[in-house]
Amino acid sequence: MTTGLLEHLATGTPSLLNRLHRSLNQAMRSPAYREKLGLSRADEVTNLDRFAELPFLTKEDLRRHSPFGLCCADEQEIVRVHSTSGTTGDPVVIPYTARDVETFAALMARALSMAGMTDGDRAMVTPGYGLWTAGIGFQTGVERLGACAIPTGPIAMEMQMAFLRKMNPSYLIGTASMALLLGETIRREGLTPSLKGAILGAEQWGDGRRAVIERLLGAKTFDIYGMTETYGPGIAIECACQEGLHYWDDLFYFEVIDPATGTVLPEGETGELVITTLVKEGLPLIRYRTRDLAAILPGTCRCGSPYPRISRILGRSDDMITYRGVNLFPSSVEKLVAETPGLGSEFRIVLTTEEGKDCLDLEVERSCDGGDEPAKDLARKMKMTLSALPRVRLLPPGGLGREMKKTRRVFDNRSR
Amino acid sequence: MTTGLLEHLATGTPSLLNRLHRSLNQAMRSPAYREKLGLSRADEVTNLDRFAELPFLTKEDLRRHSPFGLCCADEQEIVRVHSTSGTTGDPVVIPYTARDVETFAALMARALSMAGMTDGDRAMVTPGYGLWTAGIGFQTGVERLGACAIPTGPIAMEMQMAFLRKMNPSYLIGTASMALLLGETIRREGLTPSLKGAILGAEQWGDGRRAVIERLLGAKTFDIYGMTETYGPGIAIECACQEGLHYWDDLFYFEVIDPATGTVLPEGETGELVITTLVKEGLPLIRYRTRDLAAILPGTCRCGSPYPRISRILGRSDDMITYRGVNLFPSSVEKLVAETPGLGSEFRIVLTTEEGKDCLDLEVERSCDGGDEPAKDLARKMKMTLSALPRVRLLPPGGLGREMKKTRRVFDNRSR
Repeated sequence: MTTGLLEHLATGTPSLLNRLHRSLNQAMRSPAYREKLGLSRADEVTNLDRFAELPFLTKEDLRRHSPFGLCCADEQEIVRVHSTSGTTGDPVVIPYTARDVETFAALMARALSMAGMTDGDRAMVTPGYGLWTAGIGFQTGVERLGACAIPTGPIAMEMQMAFLRKMNPSYLIGTASMALLLGETIRREGLTPSLKGAILGAEQWGDGRRAVIERLLGAKTFDIYGMTETYGPGIAIECACQEGLHYWDDLFYFEVIDPATGTVLPEGETGELVITTLVKEGLPLIRYRTRDLAAILPGTCRCGSPYPRISRILGRSDDMITYRGVNLFPSSVEKLVAETPGLGSEFRIVLTTEEGKDCLDLEVERSCDGGDEPAKDLARKMKMTLSALPRVRLLPPGGLGREMKKTRRVFDNRSR
Repeated sequence: MTTGLLEHLATGTPSLLNRLHRSLNQAMRSPAYREKLGLSRADEVTNLDRFAELPFLTKEDLRRHSPFGLCCADEQEIVRVHSTSGTTGDPVVIPYTARDVETFAALMARALSMAGMTDGDRAMVTPGYGLWTAGIGFQTGVERLGACAIPTGPIAMEMQMAFLRKMNPSYLIGTASMALLLGETIRREGLTPSLKGAILGAEQWGDGRRAVIERLLGAKTFDIYGMTETYGPGIAIECACQEGLHYWDDLFYFEVIDPATGTVLPEGETGELVITTLVKEGLPLIRYRTRDLAAILPGTCRCGSPYPRISRILGRSDDMITYRGVNLFPSSVEKLVAETPGLGSEFRIVLTTEEGKDCLDLEVERSCDGGDEPAKDLARKMKMTLSALPRVRLLPPGGLGREMKKTRRVFDNRSR
């Protein structure tokens, strides 16, 4: 199994700079990529400071050159494509070589293993398949470990429950929204699930939701990270310590930058995560701006793993709300909601314009019956952040509805 | 690639009887399966006549013992399940070992290769993923060949067209209904597709539809066969001769029986196909009644392949309509429609009861403008088969609507 998890890459360890050179050489096989990088030879990058001067790669670059402008393998080597936006608009196509598919399976198996999965487990795989990377990525990782994949995908909740009852999975894989909905359904139907763990990703979810989901499922949750551009999910995951996500530094080089200036930030500081792939062939990423906000964590984890860690994702740089001159992330609101007694984990921020002024309404689900105290409490806490008192409206548990995929937290209806 | 396509199984060739013994031994690892077979040792089956006395396995057996009653591998060896009825009712779960997943990929690659696919091709994979076997089965086969999979799955037609335009696939994989709909859309939008082949299965489709689809797509069509119980699709496929489907006799033993009596029929006679798997581990099939009607074809194919052939599937035994004492298959109607000038390939049989008597209405699409002659012509032809004159109603091209998955041909609204 060691080889299957790519641990051999860590032996004979070439230096980070050597690995970056290898990846640059791969990227420079595409004329458009070479032009973008502005290099004639990879070894012009003589150290990490010089590397940090290379231009960023953006989603817009990928879109402009889709499907094969930035492809760095011969077209005959490409065995699969996935797409970052399968349902709407112009699809951004990411090509994979056979080795990329193999690396994806191996890194996913490593991630699942870090969440405690073994060959005796059964995992219900609820993310989408087909153009999306998540379904097939999780499935091949589960199979690689010798565990059993139950590939329900995003079918209706009634059928999810049928498979849950029939197959008794020990792991749930999906979004936090899916886990919440499934957990509430399990409790409503009076089932006692036999889940040990839930591996949840693809949307930002904080400690408030974590507590609710862990209680409903009776299982430990593991935040997992990744995106189609980086093979898919599985490039970072929490261990049982739940103190940040371990990432695979033999496969990826992570930087954190100030999203406004592009300057690389030191360890411990939060900014935008920038990812460079070290062994990807089809579409290697050199300094890819993820738009995800996180910090590289200093020190080593209590679990003893040699893999370094990032913080949980605090949001996307595009999620930031500017309200009366103050910058606000939904994750900060989630944190305040979680700290307020009498409230559940689910909320919605609604922004409107009234008489030319920004207004912020907060709709929050209660966790139990009671008076209006939680609303006043939350409004007071919000005022310290916002320097304006929001209107808080309390709803009964489940009052905001539920999503199977990702939950939308912000509804910005302001006039521009 | 030879090893990857399992050709090594054909070398050192153990006799068919040895292979059947091996599969019986595997089946007898499940106590329920052993009881069902009524054997104490596999070698009690001393010849093929004795094998033909073994009881049939039915879908109902699979359902009753689902998920693991008939599982013949240790549960730890199971890496995946698929389901034969994922969207409605009580799912029938089929377990796969890692070797089953590998065999499935290899036999699919062999099938695609027989349809002319090579590592330079791009294949749009439109069947469903997740609980369904087809999507992931086709995808792994395409990747195994080194061709490029475009895993659109059953997304909306607008997005299928976006990927068709963007990715220029050389093969389309899906149902005949999907191919028809895509072909009509391509023509409506005035595109010239660069398709070489279309690999179509999962529903019965005859020569009428084949001609229409080949014209619309400008590509050769290849009928492919299989079902979840037999790993999935890919256990038989047409070669370029289009004179029956080659099946893999190193992996499967095919019999054809009289569906009424269960007697094995000789080569060339049409009956119900009964399949025994030779290397399947998770849920081996011993004399599985497929309900599909076909014949084993005598002689060898012009293409020179050593693999034997079955006819195309003529329908399912449960599709048979009994109309005023006459047995009728939709495939016979399809054949008559195809032979009638002025008609398209699409039709629908509607059965009702009027004044206590069975009535048969045939709704058929025209292929072009014109008078009522095609309706009269078809009714005359039908009368020779039915000994009753059906009512034929002509509709404009596309008048019956289109399905992306399977097309329903029979609407039986008779009172019982």
